[in-house]
Amino acid sequence: MIRIGIDAMGGDYAPKEQVLGAMMAIRNIPDIELTLYGDPDQINKWCTDKTRLLIKPTAYVISMGEHEPIKAIKEHPDSSMASMLASLRKDENDAVVSSGATQALIAGAHILVRRMQGFKRTAIAPVIPSISGKETILLDAGANLEIRPEHMLQQAYFASVYAREVLNREHPVVGLINIGTEEGKGRQFDQEVFQLFQETDLFDFYGNVEPKSIFDPPCDILISDGFTANIVMKTMEGTAKGIGFMLKRELTRSFWGKIGALLAKRNLNQFKRSIAPDEIGGALIYGLYRPVIKAQGASKAYGFYNAIRQAATIVRNQVFQKVENYIQKSKADDASE
Amino acid sequence: MIRIGIDAMGGDYAPKEQVLGAMMAIRNIPDIELTLYGDPDQINKWCTDKTRLLIKPTAYVISMGEHEPIKAIKEHPDSSMASMLASLRKDENDAVVSSGATQALIAGAHILVRRMQGFKRTAIAPVIPSISGKETILLDAGANLEIRPEHMLQQAYFASVYAREVLNREHPVVGLINIGTEEGKGRQFDQEVFQLFQETDLFDFYGNVEPKSIFDPPCDILISDGFTANIVMKTMEGTAKGIGFMLKRELTRSFWGKIGALLAKRNLNQFKRSIAPDEIGGALIYGLYRPVIKAQGASKAYGFYNAIRQAATIVRNQVFQKVENYIQKSKADDASE
Repeated sequence: MIRIGIDAMGGDYAPKEQVLGAMMAIRNIPDIELTLYGDPDQINKWCTDKTRLLIKPTAYVISMGEHEPIKAIKEHPDSSMASMLASLRKDENDAVVSSGATQALIAGAHILVRRMQGFKRTAIAPVIPSISGKETILLDAGANLEIRPEHMLQQAYFASVYAREVLNREHPVVGLINIGTEEGKGRQFDQEVFQLFQETDLFDFYGNVEPKSIFDPPCDILISDGFTANIVMKTMEGTAKGIGFMLKRELTRSFWGKIGALLAKRNLNQFKRSIAPDEIGGALIYGLYRPVIKAQGASKAYGFYNAIRQAATIVRNQVFQKVENYIQKSKADDASE
Repeated sequence: MIRIGIDAMGGDYAPKEQVLGAMMAIRNIPDIELTLYGDPDQINKWCTDKTRLLIKPTAYVISMGEHEPIKAIKEHPDSSMASMLASLRKDENDAVVSSGATQALIAGAHILVRRMQGFKRTAIAPVIPSISGKETILLDAGANLEIRPEHMLQQAYFASVYAREVLNREHPVVGLINIGTEEGKGRQFDQEVFQLFQETDLFDFYGNVEPKSIFDPPCDILISDGFTANIVMKTMEGTAKGIGFMLKRELTRSFWGKIGALLAKRNLNQFKRSIAPDEIGGALIYGLYRPVIKAQGASKAYGFYNAIRQAATIVRNQVFQKVENYIQKSKADDASE
């Protein structure tokens, strides 16, 4: 059985949507058992089925708008989030899922779960939509603003194992985010990463990829340092938001525009959904001791169920063990040289 | 009289659209005189009015797809582009305008025009669209991938003088592109720039701006190093392209979508124009000895006329002299300390 811990109290619509998502997961995924961390009275309102499900009572909830996330997680070991995170090191769960405050979850993961042995720098890896419908993994979305090329090698390897085992990409390809496609482009740092990636046989390296092709990249994984990839993510968000606003304004400017928009409403809504961040899914923190999935704060039951399914797939396909084995092996190789 | 040099042969539709644009400029801007560099036979086909207009015959044209721009500009001083650029140092023109190959123009400007005295690092500064309709100046779009904070101070000052004198912003505000809005966010470098900008009284500093608000920024100027700003620009381009493609695909997926799109066609086209790069206008290279305007390669007559108008405004309002005076003054202050 795959044991997954659930922060039942974190999220804009918690605990209702989190508990309903857990119910869906129990029904649809036969090899999991869930532990829900939170207030039993509130959880029981929505918990209709206790098959393979436990409730661990917790006394505190870290709020979604928490201003001092590190302080909050340190001062409230009795919170649903902290209790859930702490369960990983106690070997009570194989993975955990939370829709709670992002910064608190990341800080809590670093304090209470800690890094995988030998993994130097964790990375936050959301997936972004593409024209083809296949998501692209973007990393590092903000964990390490400044990083050494060899640490990016570990992160890219992690992403390629994840793409193969969880996203079913047979031959995952890694692309380096850069300002030009030719070799030699970019900062000194980017050139060093390029060299290192070109020499490795850990994964397929495509080469440099310009963000001009961010929606149609020639690769499964787009990587840069945490500052650059975060800038890419936020520019995508800002551009999509701005364009959406301008489109709506333009369509409501004239009578025929309004009629046209009305007729195409279903298509326009579908379009809106395909670029909305809450369709993009949860982000995984790479390089922790065990998987911590950050589901969207605004997750409804189905979205949260998907995050649980993602956690189960990661554990079932041994993503973390595979990366850890490689790291241990490469350390042993280094030592024997 | 403001003397403006025109590369009549550079551009996707040269010389026709460049010459027609020059004709429009002569008609509409009374205080300019133009010198057209290029093949007289070809130019004369479209040149219907020689009021305040000279033609300087040149023998070579640097092609739009030039693969070795630096070599091309060095080996062809007889090209329309190189002759035009060289005219600035000979004091034959006050500013020049070209739709020719970007890399060749930038390389040529650095070789043949060179920097303004005391200006340490030139910057390329396109303008990007915004929801409000007021363009935002983005820099540095790729001239200096790695730069020192004090050189960014010069660039930001240049941008603020440009925004006031050419874009008519009464109190131009500078924002630093960053991954968070709070002070202390970003890399060591960004924090240093923040401190320096906060202490200066050269311009109004808003603080950090996340690219989430790239279409609705709280400032007139968005600045970062050349790598980051180039990544922002290319991510905007890629996102706009991807979203446009997905919107079109969604609208043609069903009968009602198609009918709706047909009715809203005028609005959708207007929307497309408002986010198209060729509506965004020409880029200026900051910090050269004299103004070099890069008009869009695909410029038609009206677009090219606008670039000439931009050049005339820069000269008329003494943007370069104002920046140069400040730099000389601050050097004198430094020396007397």
